[in-house]
Amino acid sequence: MSLQSVAHQFVEMCRQGKNFDVMRSMYAPNIVSVEGDGKQTAGQAQVIKKSEDWGSDKTFHGETVAGPFYNGANPDQFAVYFTFDITPKASGKRMRLEEVGVYTVNKEDKITREQFFYEGAR
Amino acid sequence: MSLQSVAHQFVEMCRQGKNFDVMRSMYAPNIVSVEGDGKQTAGQAQVIKKSEDWGSDKTFHGETVAGPFYNGANPDQFAVYFTFDITPKASGKRMRLEEVGVYTVNKEDKITREQFFYEGAR
Repeated sequence: MSLQSVAHQFVEMCRQGKNFDVMRSMYAPNIVSVEGDGKQTAGQAQVIKKSEDWGSDKTFHGETVAGPFYNGANPDQFAVYFTFDITPKASGKRMRLEEVGVYTVNKEDKITREQFFYEGAR
Repeated sequence: MSLQSVAHQFVEMCRQGKNFDVMRSMYAPNIVSVEGDGKQTAGQAQVIKKSEDWGSDKTFHGETVAGPFYNGANPDQFAVYFTFDITPKASGKRMRLEEVGVYTVNKEDKITREQFFYEGAR
């Protein structure tokens, strides 16, 4: 597949709410995930667990994904813009989070790196 | 100023429609602008002219800017998500463009690089 095919598959699955299927089927075993504070998590299972842990104390109402977007100087990457409509169970206050994700794809069409840009803590 | 201060000033000015004031006041003399196809334009005056040329055959109805967003692994960068509501004068067909911009800021608080991620031509 081309980068564009991988990127469109990624976006379509996210729009169907299949974020964890994306991680299981499209992430390389050695994927590195970089959060907004720069903290890195390595390994597919570890990255999935990080997402499970993050979601465990929140109710999800919806998600939007804009993109994918490309830049020819970074031919192995695509970017997306996410919004998440959530309610932290602790506060009960519904809120909207937004972030840019930059994804790196290897020659085997697997995602080897995800890097999230956002403001504030998660 | 901090990266965050520069980034918020950038976003506020864009929201006020002052995109060219941003280029004149916040861009370093040697800024490099990278379009979606990877083509680079170097120099503040050249980058301003590129934007003027791009806008010259379009009517602008509005612009939204989401962000700024950060990642600690790239401490000199911020990202934004733009949408542009335009009508190309040639077609007369109103359309919405969207893109992610990644900006690099130097120690003098000037923007030295802008890199746009989008799908399709501009």
